[in-house]
Amino acid sequence: MFFATAEYKERIRKTKERMAARGIDVLLITDPANMNYLSGYDGWSFYVHQMLVVINDEDQPIWIGREQDSNGAKLTSWLYHENIIPYPESYVQTDQRHPMDFVAEILRQIGQDKRSIGVEMENYYFTAKCYERLKKGLPNAVFHDATLLVNWVRLVKSSTEIEYMKRAALFVEKAMLDGIEIINEGVRECDVAAKVLHTQITGTEAFGGDYPAIMPLLPSGEKTSTPHLTWTDERYKHGDTVILELAGCYKRYHSPLARTVNIGKPSPQMEHLSKVVVEGLNACLDMIKPGIACEEIEEAWKKSIEKSVITKDSRLGYPTGLNYPPDWGEHTASIRKGDKTILQPNMTFHLIPGIWLDHYGFEASESIRITETGCETFAVLPRELFIKDGMSNKLTG
Amino acid sequence: MFFATAEYKERIRKTKERMAARGIDVLLITDPANMNYLSGYDGWSFYVHQMLVVINDEDQPIWIGREQDSNGAKLTSWLYHENIIPYPESYVQTDQRHPMDFVAEILRQIGQDKRSIGVEMENYYFTAKCYERLKKGLPNAVFHDATLLVNWVRLVKSSTEIEYMKRAALFVEKAMLDGIEIINEGVRECDVAAKVLHTQITGTEAFGGDYPAIMPLLPSGEKTSTPHLTWTDERYKHGDTVILELAGCYKRYHSPLARTVNIGKPSPQMEHLSKVVVEGLNACLDMIKPGIACEEIEEAWKKSIEKSVITKDSRLGYPTGLNYPPDWGEHTASIRKGDKTILQPNMTFHLIPGIWLDHYGFEASESIRITETGCETFAVLPRELFIKDGMSNKLTG
Repeated sequence: MFFATAEYKERIRKTKERMAARGIDVLLITDPANMNYLSGYDGWSFYVHQMLVVINDEDQPIWIGREQDSNGAKLTSWLYHENIIPYPESYVQTDQRHPMDFVAEILRQIGQDKRSIGVEMENYYFTAKCYERLKKGLPNAVFHDATLLVNWVRLVKSSTEIEYMKRAALFVEKAMLDGIEIINEGVRECDVAAKVLHTQITGTEAFGGDYPAIMPLLPSGEKTSTPHLTWTDERYKHGDTVILELAGCYKRYHSPLARTVNIGKPSPQMEHLSKVVVEGLNACLDMIKPGIACEEIEEAWKKSIEKSVITKDSRLGYPTGLNYPPDWGEHTASIRKGDKTILQPNMTFHLIPGIWLDHYGFEASESIRITETGCETFAVLPRELFIKDGMSNKLTG
Repeated sequence: MFFATAEYKERIRKTKERMAARGIDVLLITDPANMNYLSGYDGWSFYVHQMLVVINDEDQPIWIGREQDSNGAKLTSWLYHENIIPYPESYVQTDQRHPMDFVAEILRQIGQDKRSIGVEMENYYFTAKCYERLKKGLPNAVFHDATLLVNWVRLVKSSTEIEYMKRAALFVEKAMLDGIEIINEGVRECDVAAKVLHTQITGTEAFGGDYPAIMPLLPSGEKTSTPHLTWTDERYKHGDTVILELAGCYKRYHSPLARTVNIGKPSPQMEHLSKVVVEGLNACLDMIKPGIACEEIEEAWKKSIEKSVITKDSRLGYPTGLNYPPDWGEHTASIRKGDKTILQPNMTFHLIPGIWLDHYGFEASESIRITETGCETFAVLPRELFIKDGMSNKLTG
């Protein structure tokens, strides 16, 4: 198990507090990160339906999932084995029946079918069909949208969670340096991706890495005009810009980090863009402290870049930590105009002022922890445009 | 682009044929594999809402997605740029508005709001909330469940798709051999995962690999009692069994493969289990040919294993090919009792007779193509329990 049982119980307590405030008796959790957060369950089984049921007047949650995954729940969670309920294989990927029919039947059997039930309406692993089948199977229940209820509990991290993110940061520092080291004219994009992933997962001698919730994002050349392209097997050309957005991951806790590399001398526009962005990022890091609102960070950023011609509409960052594919963001607060979330110590964010213009782009980011008096970055790596001499592997950035 | 435009157009034609048969005028596609299949679009942007709109009386589909991803759609798809419609950043991960409000508005603007609209009710990327907001935004539309409509078009592969899966098979053969090579007493699980991923992604000299839709599944010891655990940073012990379930991936096309390794002499039970499973798998491979139904394969398997005490309730396999996280299976046919899908040439399956008992398990699988007269495996690797001599790295399997 990744945490002491007491820590899981404290998380359950906080979850029930929020359930009570919302009038929710029974919470059906389908987000794999939320399932892990409350139960410890960890497996790549979220491609079939599974669920954690938190009942306000029961001590332990109930895990419901596919039969062949139930031994995984026994091995990785802190739950009593009698709270692990497998559904038969006949419910898997068929139009004859649906796993939510099984869930409804279980809730009926344990007398929870006439209660106020919270569901995660906006979650990858709670499909439109899940909701239709649950409503049909539980006609006497009252449904509430409990999207992000547990995510908000996750916003402030414990000391063990912070320690895990620090370990993840060691992995991403190494992976970023390895990536920057081998990027050069004539090198294939896939070979950089492979090297980066290898380093992310071997980790350090003391601690090994886990798979990140997002694969390395490695756009190059014109593809830097957009942030979410991964890689191809094409070779870098002289003059190419390459963006690396990566995360180290330790026991499912992430420390994301982005840097940008230029193969050969950058254009004056790229030099300018990189300076503006790094200055803006530094301005934010200087002013972030407990007590301010998320939107104030964005104001500091805007003030810093307003002397340039560069503008940015997209948000500047989001909370990060525990997660599963397809996203390492927590979907709660956002660092943007209008977000009044007040920073508290041990909140953790990925601060990512990426700029993607029509034909090129630049990213430099930091994962940060809010401290008692300010903030600190998880990774320590120069914040600048890295420049590779196209003729050798010398790192000149 | 991964395919000729003519191939994308043929796929659209087949999709419209199925739409017509179901009385669907407008198909809203949220499955990233289906989006890629019809448009070529490829990016790790599916963690925010995005969609491909296929209209029965329009030549080209419309891509709708986040603003910063629209350059990615221009770079990777065959669509006219005017068919790429970005939604503003203010729709991203907020409870103020929802990307489906934007989609509804676009459909109203182009006069498609009073039509018969198909949605993928059972897809990771079409949440319960998506459906609620679409229904609210399009009160005059009639909604149909179009889950798997495009997936069924994907069932029979083109020659280029088969070629891509053959390349992916070269990657997974190498990755499997590399994994088996380094697994040994005292080696960390994460170091095997890192090596395997590195090989999957470097691929061959001619072709580089893409990220697989599922990370390496590497349960060991008691964890082999369940199939979907990934890895930890613990060290293998003498006597451990290790299951490797991996896929090579080329341009999003997968060739999955599973093998099992024993560190030191296997127990008599494990030897027996491995023999029964491999015999059963071979019996299936011998009888598979066009014209038979999926369930007949499962009957051949059952007949082969019935002389042992081993039973298996879970399905024996599923179609595979193009995919994105979290699954490389296509969710259409299943190789199990009751599935009447008739095999045709160039259907492709992952045939995976895994057995997970209370304290140990065994997997050996093959990705196969249905040929004109039978079937062939994509990868070529001995089908047996691999045995590692615990004292050296010698591969004795």
